Amino acid sequence: MKVHGKPMRTLWLEEDGQAVGIIDQTRLPHAFVTARLSTVDEVAHAIRAMRVRGAPLIGATAAYGVWLALRADASDGALERALALLGATRPTAVNLRWALEDMRRRLAPLPPSERVAAAKRRAAEVCDEDVAINRAIGGHGLKLLEEAWARKGRQGRLEVLTHCNAGWLATVDWGTALSPVYLAHDAGLPVHVWVDETRPRNQGAGLTAWELGQHGVPHTVIADNVGGHLMQHGQVDLCIVGTDRTTASGDVANKIGTYLKALAARDTGVPFYVALPSPTIDWTLRDGVRDIPIEQRDGAELSDVSGRLPSGEVVTVRVTPEGSPAANYAFDVTPARLVTALVTERGVCAASEEGLRSLFPERAGRAP
Amino acid sequence: MKVHGKPMRTLWLEEDGQAVGIIDQTRLPHAFVTARLSTVDEVAHAIRAMRVRGAPLIGATAAYGVWLALRADASDGALERALALLGATRPTAVNLRWALEDMRRRLAPLPPSERVAAAKRRAAEVCDEDVAINRAIGGHGLKLLEEAWARKGRQGRLEVLTHCNAGWLATVDWGTALSPVYLAHDAGLPVHVWVDETRPRNQGAGLTAWELGQHGVPHTVIADNVGGHLMQHGQVDLCIVGTDRTTASGDVANKIGTYLKALAARDTGVPFYVALPSPTIDWTLRDGVRDIPIEQRDGAELSDVSGRLPSGEVVTVRVTPEGSPAANYAFDVTPARLVTALVTERGVCAASEEGLRSLFPERAGRAP
Repeated sequence: MKVHGKPMRTLWLEEDGQAVGIIDQTRLPHAFVTARLSTVDEVAHAIRAMRVRGAPLIGATAAYGVWLALRADASDGALERALALLGATRPTAVNLRWALEDMRRRLAPLPPSERVAAAKRRAAEVCDEDVAINRAIGGHGLKLLEEAWARKGRQGRLEVLTHCNAGWLATVDWGTALSPVYLAHDAGLPVHVWVDETRPRNQGAGLTAWELGQHGVPHTVIADNVGGHLMQHGQVDLCIVGTDRTTASGDVANKIGTYLKALAARDTGVPFYVALPSPTIDWTLRDGVRDIPIEQRDGAELSDVSGRLPSGEVVTVRVTPEGSPAANYAFDVTPARLVTALVTERGVCAASEEGLRSLFPERAGRAP
Repeated sequence: MKVHGKPMRTLWLEEDGQAVGIIDQTRLPHAFVTARLSTVDEVAHAIRAMRVRGAPLIGATAAYGVWLALRADASDGALERALALLGATRPTAVNLRWALEDMRRRLAPLPPSERVAAAKRRAAEVCDEDVAINRAIGGHGLKLLEEAWARKGRQGRLEVLTHCNAGWLATVDWGTALSPVYLAHDAGLPVHVWVDETRPRNQGAGLTAWELGQHGVPHTVIADNVGGHLMQHGQVDLCIVGTDRTTASGDVANKIGTYLKALAARDTGVPFYVALPSPTIDWTLRDGVRDIPIEQRDGAELSDVSGRLPSGEVVTVRVTPEGSPAANYAFDVTPARLVTALVTERGVCAASEEGLRSLFPERAGRAP
């Protein structure tokens, strides 16, 4: 998508071919800054510190991280150390595990002398595949938006609510949940997005609002508390979010607070869609609430808020009293029963084992 | 309750008897500052700017506002102007309307020469009645907490989740939702409170955490997004919140986001209690979602966050990108069907017309 009118991706091979470039997402929306990652340690740190984030983008960045590790040392031990280091950066997103297992499967059988070139090639493919998958998700999701617009009698605006950032910043390009929104906007549908602020890290207020603004999509930032009220009053036509891990039964782990919006959507009859590339599916799990590990992060992400002063300087302020602890759970799990449909690169299906099996017969048949 | 170990109320007659004193709640939790209000305009501004807030405290402060207005001019016209000015400060809380109607009913029949003293006396009574009501709510709510503690086998901590601030800062003393929590803590129950941050104004992170901390009640601040996850995982034994307006049918308007927590409580089988003094009941309304007016406030309350720098200086930072609008709905309505019980000064009842009628037969019988 575009930044200051110029098309770009969130992850690229630097021109000298010796490193990868990223947009430092911790600096958005206040500053647009890119960074160069030359070592696997820099990649691991960038993922942990959420300079890159979003399940699909984490997976793709980690694939390049394996390449950078092998460039320094292409031995079996170095490969395993890199996979372990990168695999430990974030616990919830399954794309990360998927990308690392894909790299291991392809690289481990090769002689070390061939691994560096193969890793670089495969990481680039992972990126291109992500872009193609997300574009396909957009096409399938666009039909759902067009249906909602038709149901509304093509009057007013098509009101979409999203939580966190499942836009192009969360992927290599296009986004997952926002891919249909971009396509709808480009096709002339008068789409308007209610952007959940997404505390504590403000990925909605900081990233989703920023990327929608850069592309010219009308949007309004709201507190995470507001969506239920809007849905009660007919101001949301559909919800669409991303996911960091989807079980084989259709339960979806996504940014903390997603479950609350899904409950409100169910209570008010608003469709609740989850957009996902298939590498997000964890075919080994059936019970998301019980089995998906939920990352706990530093409470300071809640108690300390970053923003810019009128001078433009970006500072961090404490919002809680001295002595009040803060807890920070990063994700929650929305049970499949609350999800109207899943939107994948192969089409739209019910959030159920049967639904996923219908689109991915080759995977769903395998034993967990 | 106590501030720095010294018992105080949130509203008092100043020692010279010429003005009322308040805690400036916009300065908390970063600074404890009191303010003197000498005119009805200062009172109206303090309510509008949320230097005093919380439905019961707004009502009591407005009662003193009428006194201050009459001190300057005790004519019929001045009384009506004061009632209109104060009545327009905040639209959702019904206690405000209740207090102003109470003042009108008592003062309008009096000759102007007697109004000033009567207004001062009645405002003081409104304050004392609020304290007594809240203490009674605490006693009834305490039984619910003790029951939950017994159900849990008196093991571990009694986990309470609350949203916004319905503590003593929202009232003249004791609080509504937190009154039972203070009594439980003082009685030796190992109560721990999950404090919803309560965006956009952070009344949880700023006020509830502060007042619980001042009283020594263990608590943890969480993002508004987190409660559903905690409830899914058995980490909440009960929810208790306040309300700004309750319909005769038991629907409750409270701080935006309350509805989402009630949905999660219902979905996970956690009791969801609403504590309210009877002046909060609007006996004229039956359908809260349709009929309770919901205040919309400046979007800057969402986009601009105040906090303190490491230096101690309090500053306001912008968290959203330039050009991204923000919408700010201050309340939502939780339908009675999601409320386990109402806790009033007369006892606990079902959130229904029958329930309220059983406790307030003298009011529920009246035509709307």
